[in-house]
Amino acid sequence: MRLSDLGEFGLIERLTAAVGTAARSESLLVGIGDDAAAWRSGDQVLLATTDAMVEGVHFLTGCQPWADVGWKALAANVSDIAAMGGTPEFALVTLAVSDRIAVKDIDALYEGLAECARNYGVAIVGGDIVRAEVVSVTVALLGRAQIQANGEPFLLRRDAAIAGQAIAVTGSLGDAPGGLRLLRQDMRRPHDDPLLAAYMRPHPPLALGQAAAGLGVRCGIDISDGLLQDLGHICRASKLSASVRAEAIPISLELKNAFPEEALEMACAGGEDYQLLLVGDAAVLRSLALDIDGPLTIIGETVADGDSDVRLLDATGREMALSRRGWDHLREA
Amino acid sequence: MRLSDLGEFGLIERLTAAVGTAARSESLLVGIGDDAAAWRSGDQVLLATTDAMVEGVHFLTGCQPWADVGWKALAANVSDIAAMGGTPEFALVTLAVSDRIAVKDIDALYEGLAECARNYGVAIVGGDIVRAEVVSVTVALLGRAQIQANGEPFLLRRDAAIAGQAIAVTGSLGDAPGGLRLLRQDMRRPHDDPLLAAYMRPHPPLALGQAAAGLGVRCGIDISDGLLQDLGHICRASKLSASVRAEAIPISLELKNAFPEEALEMACAGGEDYQLLLVGDAAVLRSLALDIDGPLTIIGETVADGDSDVRLLDATGREMALSRRGWDHLREA
Repeated sequence: MRLSDLGEFGLIERLTAAVGTAARSESLLVGIGDDAAAWRSGDQVLLATTDAMVEGVHFLTGCQPWADVGWKALAANVSDIAAMGGTPEFALVTLAVSDRIAVKDIDALYEGLAECARNYGVAIVGGDIVRAEVVSVTVALLGRAQIQANGEPFLLRRDAAIAGQAIAVTGSLGDAPGGLRLLRQDMRRPHDDPLLAAYMRPHPPLALGQAAAGLGVRCGIDISDGLLQDLGHICRASKLSASVRAEAIPISLELKNAFPEEALEMACAGGEDYQLLLVGDAAVLRSLALDIDGPLTIIGETVADGDSDVRLLDATGREMALSRRGWDHLREA
Repeated sequence: MRLSDLGEFGLIERLTAAVGTAARSESLLVGIGDDAAAWRSGDQVLLATTDAMVEGVHFLTGCQPWADVGWKALAANVSDIAAMGGTPEFALVTLAVSDRIAVKDIDALYEGLAECARNYGVAIVGGDIVRAEVVSVTVALLGRAQIQANGEPFLLRRDAAIAGQAIAVTGSLGDAPGGLRLLRQDMRRPHDDPLLAAYMRPHPPLALGQAAAGLGVRCGIDISDGLLQDLGHICRASKLSASVRAEAIPISLELKNAFPEEALEMACAGGEDYQLLLVGDAAVLRSLALDIDGPLTIIGETVADGDSDVRLLDATGREMALSRRGWDHLREA
């Protein structure tokens, strides 16, 4: 069997089985399979996550500023901590570099990392530097959860959704995949374009994740693999289904103008938006939306159905499906 | 300027300068530049380190079992926590894999990781899987320091050596670089050869690091870059010099038999032994040697001399230097 037959998630399942007894610990609260791991350490609950960016896969040298590569390598990890409702604190950075990269480019990469670290209150405290033909940046980010008065942590987990709850998302979706498409069409496009900026310098809504957890929201995930796929992770972990109203999905005017035909597809199935998806009581999510900067939009609800389906519905309530031309009605009337 | 002009340590210095304000935190005890970072978290002191292994640089596919690659990827990190006197607890594993690797090989890699995790009481709680042409395994390992009754941590630091202290090393040195040499000479050599085993499956002396810190030893480092280079890190961080008696360096019979001419060079300048070097009171180190399994050998002492020199002395006290043929006298009598 080859890796391509398994896919990333198949490989993760295989890993989870392989490490089996090596994944157990009395103090562990959340292990493999959520945005971050969580465990008790003295009077604290700690969070840890790691994300890697590889040249040619996650970024393209020559058309992305190195500072943006550095920013995004850390921001992707901040997004994981935000998706647990926690506070990021300390980062380790592993840099695999080839001698064909100029020192000034590495300096720029570190400057972008440092800028993101200052923005989110993270201290970069160590790392590793290795030689490799292909450049990659791997960040491990440690943080902590907020603790309730009873000593229990406030955590946003993938497996904590309940049927009949509302599904909400932050920001607008699809901007980052739209930006990537623009970049591929024109490598020299100005980087202040809002779609390109969304792709190159994501700003995960950290304060919102913390506020949601503090208000009692118990379920969340970051939208890094695309709305429908990430909501699918919640459905499988929580053993329920979900329905999403296509017209409720927040899509920016910039994305609609740039890709009128494909904006919905990008918002549903594009990756790397690094927004948050929350599942909780509709009234709590609405009050949260009033408290915070930036939009929080209710787009659907969870359904008591163990098939772990994610259904996208049109304005008339009919189910839609993705075809090669975008989202179509699944069943003709 | 190219990276090769700077070298790894030059690049780390540049990084330290670049992250500057992003490396500060009130709770930080040990930042960039030691075996692991350390910070206060509630009533605990946490430790974090990361190490990456890259195909073709740190391991060779085809002549090293994948299980050993997995074992060593975690063991190298355990060594960093041992060198702080701490206890490793939770690991994140980032795997960069190419589709040319068979799933059974990845399974073996994970089995080796899990075996090492069980051996050292580590829980593997998360990670990332990315696609890349070159395989690499990056582990981030979190642990904690022992805490004294007064709330201060017992830590082995690079900058805590004092002039006139004894220098001791665990195990025997040079076995791992000897094993690598054997492997390069004969890719099909049986893996139960003790030198090959030292190279492929290092066993960092975790309990000894903890015992040393608990007895009041304050300075240590792991020997992953070679004895003289790692001792040089301590000299620079502690602003003193060191002298090492060549004939006191523990060298195994296996290494002497396999490489009679080069054994001393391998013990002094070869890498990847993953033994510990401790600097402390000679009487404390001698009592520690009685308490533990496996050898702990005093090989020299620190000297009040701000040049941060590491001097290797022959049996008559004359300084030796490395030539192309091995260690020679630096100055002729």
